[in-house]
Amino acid sequence: MKRISSRDNALYKELKALATSSQARRRAGRTLLDGVHLCEAYLDAVGLPAICVASDSAMVNPEVVAILERCAGTHSVVLPDALYGALSQVEHGVGLMFVIDTPQLDAPTELSGAAVLLDNLQDPGNLGSILRSAAAAGIREVHCSAGTVFAWSPKVLRAGMGAHFTLQIHEHADLASLLKTARLPVLATSSHASASIYDTDLSQPVAWLFGHEGQGVSAELLALAGRHVAIPHLGPIESLNVAASAAVCLFESVRQKLSRK
Amino acid sequence: MKRISSRDNALYKELKALATSSQARRRAGRTLLDGVHLCEAYLDAVGLPAICVASDSAMVNPEVVAILERCAGTHSVVLPDALYGALSQVEHGVGLMFVIDTPQLDAPTELSGAAVLLDNLQDPGNLGSILRSAAAAGIREVHCSAGTVFAWSPKVLRAGMGAHFTLQIHEHADLASLLKTARLPVLATSSHASASIYDTDLSQPVAWLFGHEGQGVSAELLALAGRHVAIPHLGPIESLNVAASAAVCLFESVRQKLSRK
Repeated sequence: MKRISSRDNALYKELKALATSSQARRRAGRTLLDGVHLCEAYLDAVGLPAICVASDSAMVNPEVVAILERCAGTHSVVLPDALYGALSQVEHGVGLMFVIDTPQLDAPTELSGAAVLLDNLQDPGNLGSILRSAAAAGIREVHCSAGTVFAWSPKVLRAGMGAHFTLQIHEHADLASLLKTARLPVLATSSHASASIYDTDLSQPVAWLFGHEGQGVSAELLALAGRHVAIPHLGPIESLNVAASAAVCLFESVRQKLSRK
Repeated sequence: MKRISSRDNALYKELKALATSSQARRRAGRTLLDGVHLCEAYLDAVGLPAICVASDSAMVNPEVVAILERCAGTHSVVLPDALYGALSQVEHGVGLMFVIDTPQLDAPTELSGAAVLLDNLQDPGNLGSILRSAAAAGIREVHCSAGTVFAWSPKVLRAGMGAHFTLQIHEHADLASLLKTARLPVLATSSHASASIYDTDLSQPVAWLFGHEGQGVSAELLALAGRHVAIPHLGPIESLNVAASAAVCLFESVRQKLSRK
């Protein structure tokens, strides 16, 4: 493995930019996977990364060594701990990251399978949590509006715990035109809806529309969603965090599918 | 209202400490509620705060004026925007916060009603989301282990959206002894469990045990939980974010209760 020991090294500067600037990540079409779990999930689901980056002290970690062996032949570099630390946002991490090319997907022309649509979602933790719930619920397609936080940022990747690699994540999606031509029911949650998710048939494929943490789904998109459904509540608080709400909806669908089997 | 214009003012220094130091919040037994939504929720659920704090520019906001009128007679101060801004973590906030006394609850001797138990939960957003889900699901009691993030920090309060004021939140709880003497079923989620939440009777009061984001519930506590249940999944990802998992469990219980009615 090549060793980089200077902050002025061109590749190190590139890594630093990927670690710290979302603009650099978008421009390069690349991002960083930080930590053993994400790197393993990537190897299992996708394949080899563009570059492996390890810290000096990670080279004695058996998990890291095993991953580097799986990546034999891949461009790999090792960094002094101080240089590695400046790239990583993971506290007490083991010192391994992958540089990967972010998938470039064609914009879909229509919505024909089960999907999650996200309008202007702001919080990286919420996006990661929703991607994880969607992947666990058997959904493959996610469409994010232009205002939604970038799905391939290190924070969203960490929160997604590998879900990214099993999903088709379309960013800058034109949600309004997808809704207009959708060939399956599109559901949005609303505390004003009279229909409960528990009384709605979710055993067939549906698309779910979730929105901004404070403002919810925009009025324009809400009007385009075919069905508004409520999550009933038994306590004095009426609304859930958007990722909690998504988990409840997606797993009510899982429950209904399993009970039909 | 009294106007404070100097950073050296004793009350301002106290506010600054509450805003920036969790140690100061614990020592004072006080915390800050930042923003109109939290302040209104507090007035509705609990009553008057210890102190109202507004920024100069908030004094022309009708929502703020209405809240200050509800607080007539309460110790209230107004700050120049720059001084207020140094206290607030809310971007583009309206410039209103309450100083409140955090509830001091007696440690419960036993677990006798529906509850959520949290072992070493780390993320403020996850804690806030779980509190919100618990309150919406009709649960009143939450017990947090000593290692769990402080429930009354501004970040957790923001994520809780007022749920705090409808719950009994016990911190530094001795979860092991609560579990040992529990008078109702205690459930912990585990991907290894053979029983599914959907096949478990959740229409009666139960206590839920959730744990650390990476490591889950500690082995000791897991062994004390009477039942281990799995959330079935249909996709390649097996585990959910802990707050998503809690939402799925708590609302499966809501669904079962509603279907029994």
